[in-house]
Amino acid sequence: MRSIDPTSIPTPELHQILVGAVAPRPIAFASTLSADGVPNIAPYSFFNVFSSNPPTMVFSSNRRVSDGTTKDTLSNVEANKEVVINVVPYSLVRQMAVASIQYPTEVSEFEKSGLTAVASEVVKPLRIKESPVQFECKVNKILPLGDEGGAGHLIICEVVRIHLNEDILDESGKINPHKIDLMGRLGRAFYVRASGEAVHKIYQPVTRIGIGYDQLPESIRNSTIFTGNNLGQLASLPHPPSSESIQTLKQQNDIQKILQEEAPIHALHRYAQTELAKENLELAAQIAWLGEFL
Amino acid sequence: MRSIDPTSIPTPELHQILVGAVAPRPIAFASTLSADGVPNIAPYSFFNVFSSNPPTMVFSSNRRVSDGTTKDTLSNVEANKEVVINVVPYSLVRQMAVASIQYPTEVSEFEKSGLTAVASEVVKPLRIKESPVQFECKVNKILPLGDEGGAGHLIICEVVRIHLNEDILDESGKINPHKIDLMGRLGRAFYVRASGEAVHKIYQPVTRIGIGYDQLPESIRNSTIFTGNNLGQLASLPHPPSSESIQTLKQQNDIQKILQEEAPIHALHRYAQTELAKENLELAAQIAWLGEFL
Repeated sequence: MRSIDPTSIPTPELHQILVGAVAPRPIAFASTLSADGVPNIAPYSFFNVFSSNPPTMVFSSNRRVSDGTTKDTLSNVEANKEVVINVVPYSLVRQMAVASIQYPTEVSEFEKSGLTAVASEVVKPLRIKESPVQFECKVNKILPLGDEGGAGHLIICEVVRIHLNEDILDESGKINPHKIDLMGRLGRAFYVRASGEAVHKIYQPVTRIGIGYDQLPESIRNSTIFTGNNLGQLASLPHPPSSESIQTLKQQNDIQKILQEEAPIHALHRYAQTELAKENLELAAQIAWLGEFL
Repeated sequence: MRSIDPTSIPTPELHQILVGAVAPRPIAFASTLSADGVPNIAPYSFFNVFSSNPPTMVFSSNRRVSDGTTKDTLSNVEANKEVVINVVPYSLVRQMAVASIQYPTEVSEFEKSGLTAVASEVVKPLRIKESPVQFECKVNKILPLGDEGGAGHLIICEVVRIHLNEDILDESGKINPHKIDLMGRLGRAFYVRASGEAVHKIYQPVTRIGIGYDQLPESIRNSTIFTGNNLGQLASLPHPPSSESIQTLKQQNDIQKILQEEAPIHALHRYAQTELAKENLELAAQIAWLGEFL
């Protein structure tokens, strides 16, 4: 491990570490109006939701690292305290990239990106029609984090109206990650597309107390087969498998065959691992615990 | 589009919309110490970096929607104003899930998850050894966002020391997204793994002024072939292709063949599209603009 004092390295280098390690970041495609009424849209990945009640989002428009100057979005929200935060699916990421270009203040990025402006219901800034979820927001507070290049401003926004394209919902009326197909920002020029095979389902009810790693038998904890994720899956079980279930398992022909192998514990752990990959946690646990009875 | 007044729906429903639409979210695996010195680790996805100078991160520990109570992490940072934010790669996401379980305050999630505690250099809370980037932080400010269930607290942290596993760097010393292999949080039980084929490279220098969608010829803007992303790629070009390059292209045998097809404009746009997919922007632009000279 390299140990780094952040005050000892140049801001651009520090910036690269921060954006490479704190990722993937959601993207706020922020629509604002200048004091003169010129529409502006620009993407920000120093952004997230922070509260459901009241519904609160925060994004930061940072001072440029090069010269410490601030951006149009910041002066716009300072002027009129309103913003529409539009989400960014894969289908419009290249038009978003065009809107990120530093056009002069009087140029509308709606025209430059070819995205469609639609009127909002509660606030004055325009929404981006092509975005599947648009949050009309009032800016409650702007908190500057510093005075020099690279300094952020926390722009604290309360959501006052939500527009939701129903095509992104599944049958139960909930947002389906594959249908909303969002882009996340990584470091450098990288983005991640959060749909398809990259999506993993990890169901972990926080109120169902798992036995924990410390309650796993030593033969499991010291396994050379199981990964940290495998051990995490076994530790998340609400209770260890019963002796009866393990004894019943032991009678099965496939298990009897495994027990006659040269290193039955390894074979059992590999078998348990294939069941863990299929999320068959209880069966996997029985197989893994059987290693205790060899 | 469905229009939703957030004050008109129950908090759990609003919460699901917010976490389904504001995604993928980076995960802060936050390590804190109670006033009595009990170590606590818990994951938070209401989290991001917000400034490089000073290096500032914000995460929120929310009041539970069910009963408005707060969590151990919040009382710990209130007690001693220190936290270590550890990033979460794929390799430890299941152990992170175990640490998200609501164990009683006196239980250490290090023991329950099987993750390894290591001493920090500047702050008292312990680092998670298995995490490839660990940020030791001082908590500068805690800003409550509300009093009821679902209300967040902005925990504003300044990074005072960074620990970086050099295995995640590429030859140029920069963080490689495939090597750091981070997990992002989506709605419900979904996560995204930000590596492999899900990673896209979109190089867009913000100071290189693109011609913009409004400067694309009408035959391109009205194409039934090009997607919004294709138009965004063409709009990002610093200038349109020269007449000379288009005339030269026109002489090529493959182009001559396309021009004899029944709908040459469609064929040209499809050809340009395949070149856009390969990021051959200049060639794609010449092919697309040739449609103007039919």
